Amino acid sequence: MGHLKLHIPGPVEVSEKTWKAMATPMIGHRSENFQDLYSKVQPQLQELLGTERLVYLSTSSAWGIMEGAIRNLVNEKLLCCMCGAFSDKWLDVANRCGIKAEGLQVEWGSPILPKKIDEKLDSGNFDAITLVHNETSTGLMNPLEDISKLKEKYPDVMFIVDSVTSMTAVPLHFDKLGIDVLLAGTQKAWALPPGFGIFVVSAKALERAAKTETRGYYFDFLEFQKNAEKNMTPSTPSIPHINAMSSKLDEFFSEGLDNRFARHQKTNKMTREWASKHGFTLFPDAGYESISLTCVNNGAKKEGRIVDVPRLQNLMKEKGILIDGGYGKIKGLAFRLSNMGDETEETIGDLITKLDDSMKELG
Amino acid sequence: MGHLKLHIPGPVEVSEKTWKAMATPMIGHRSENFQDLYSKVQPQLQELLGTERLVYLSTSSAWGIMEGAIRNLVNEKLLCCMCGAFSDKWLDVANRCGIKAEGLQVEWGSPILPKKIDEKLDSGNFDAITLVHNETSTGLMNPLEDISKLKEKYPDVMFIVDSVTSMTAVPLHFDKLGIDVLLAGTQKAWALPPGFGIFVVSAKALERAAKTETRGYYFDFLEFQKNAEKNMTPSTPSIPHINAMSSKLDEFFSEGLDNRFARHQKTNKMTREWASKHGFTLFPDAGYESISLTCVNNGAKKEGRIVDVPRLQNLMKEKGILIDGGYGKIKGLAFRLSNMGDETEETIGDLITKLDDSMKELG
Repeated sequence: MGHLKLHIPGPVEVSEKTWKAMATPMIGHRSENFQDLYSKVQPQLQELLGTERLVYLSTSSAWGIMEGAIRNLVNEKLLCCMCGAFSDKWLDVANRCGIKAEGLQVEWGSPILPKKIDEKLDSGNFDAITLVHNETSTGLMNPLEDISKLKEKYPDVMFIVDSVTSMTAVPLHFDKLGIDVLLAGTQKAWALPPGFGIFVVSAKALERAAKTETRGYYFDFLEFQKNAEKNMTPSTPSIPHINAMSSKLDEFFSEGLDNRFARHQKTNKMTREWASKHGFTLFPDAGYESISLTCVNNGAKKEGRIVDVPRLQNLMKEKGILIDGGYGKIKGLAFRLSNMGDETEETIGDLITKLDDSMKELG
Repeated sequence: MGHLKLHIPGPVEVSEKTWKAMATPMIGHRSENFQDLYSKVQPQLQELLGTERLVYLSTSSAWGIMEGAIRNLVNEKLLCCMCGAFSDKWLDVANRCGIKAEGLQVEWGSPILPKKIDEKLDSGNFDAITLVHNETSTGLMNPLEDISKLKEKYPDVMFIVDSVTSMTAVPLHFDKLGIDVLLAGTQKAWALPPGFGIFVVSAKALERAAKTETRGYYFDFLEFQKNAEKNMTPSTPSIPHINAMSSKLDEFFSEGLDNRFARHQKTNKMTREWASKHGFTLFPDAGYESISLTCVNNGAKKEGRIVDVPRLQNLMKEKGILIDGGYGKIKGLAFRLSNMGDETEETIGDLITKLDDSMKELG
């Protein structure tokens, strides 16, 4: 079997153009050439994320930054907003770091609502919260804008937001949201290879970090800031990823950010409509569906159609496409279709044709 | 100015073949394809490092693993063997992690001798030591084999060894050495792009880690072990780096490891002899010179010739080659020539011709 095109929710397909950019001849990471590269992508990253803050580049997957964020920012107690495999895991990671933490757990498929966070924060016990914007395991998008409004009421609580599968797929205005950390990995909506992370941190978060002992070195926010001011990174970075990112950013701005966001809306509508057409329901609660992937219900919730997911996956593999068969405790009880990255109406049309054919073969 | 060939001590030049391997079409990191890739490189890594332990792959630079190692293994007090910029820094990193640590500092250019470590460990105060095998800032190679013999006397002290600029350039038999952690980044003697790390951990170190709280998640040794047993990594890895590594490992074994080590010996002798020929002395103490790079004294120590290093660097740049002008407190007072990675007698011959020409031009 040759290469399978990835329609799993990350890593996603990487284009030839991106691979070529990645293979740019090597330069030293303490050279002017490197500073030129960083200072070229910096304003693009700032525009993309709606921020005047410096954007940091981390040679790690997103989990490294997530662990770093809580090591940098939690001195009292952390509230972890939990609504799926990835957001749930953050509580476990906090425990492993020896950080006092409590979960605000809702059922998988349901969103985190501002009211519930407000009730928790009202206790005055918490100095930080973690929130996953787009919970990839359930295909759910939490109401980030509404949640961020709480920041006015709780200015000293650090709002740490994972936008792993939403960054570059939906508008994210860091400064307007007023949150404290926004982070993502590269192998999702960015359509870059895995192994790299991007994040931005508020001035208030840097002040907090300065007061936090044992925050370490590799993910020390103050080191990132100090180095970013010189267009450098604290440790030797994955320069190939930055070259690939530079190429990708050029593509984003050449397409236009609004066009890019609209494209994700359109292609996501296509996969959702495909699911309805075949009698499936969606796993996330209505009104909170992610727009970068579709999590199709297949028995995890009562209503809707049920098919043999591993067989559907195999039929799709025969057609050269890899789709996901559900994650964590809903494996097999849901399946996921990604429209992240470079996917267009045409390529999602092709996905749908192949899904239609596979459904016929399933009988 | 076009691409400058890198003769700095990392990142080093990356070959076309490696770039091509890096651009292998993307696969999912929880797929059988990924497990196949890891299980292909695993025995090669084990042979390279002389170990029956599983070798771990870290999506980070070496500093991430270094910080991880001390977070996993130090419960009492850490002894940091310090003999240059990189080994000195480990003490600072330990402090930032809130780990009790003490330095065993020798003058830059001098080695860490077993006797000095023995005197310190004899106190019974330490449960771990950090050692940089090849101190890149001073071009010095510490006597790792002799130091490792102390392990018999201090079996409960964790020996954590950074082999960043020695791994793949000199023989390293992890199991025979009996040490507890051996780690490196990819952008040095491996001749892979930066942004990735390789490490191996003793059974005893895993036992220690199991007793260490707050070791976190991203660099948790037990997570690496648990996942490596399934040919996976704890977090989403940089798959491009692993594809590139796989190609590189094939090259190593096709050349033959002994031939590879002999090649580094030969090419290193060439740069050392070049320095003598021009009246320079070497910065590291005699008998402890690194064999993957040459640190030429240029005033940091009293004896020998002194030239205008920035001018020498510029003359070399005009000839298409980047050399290093000294690191940290000996910047300008030393310069460094790397023979790491793919360099051959022919390419080092070319470097030397250009250095000779530049010396003439310096007058």
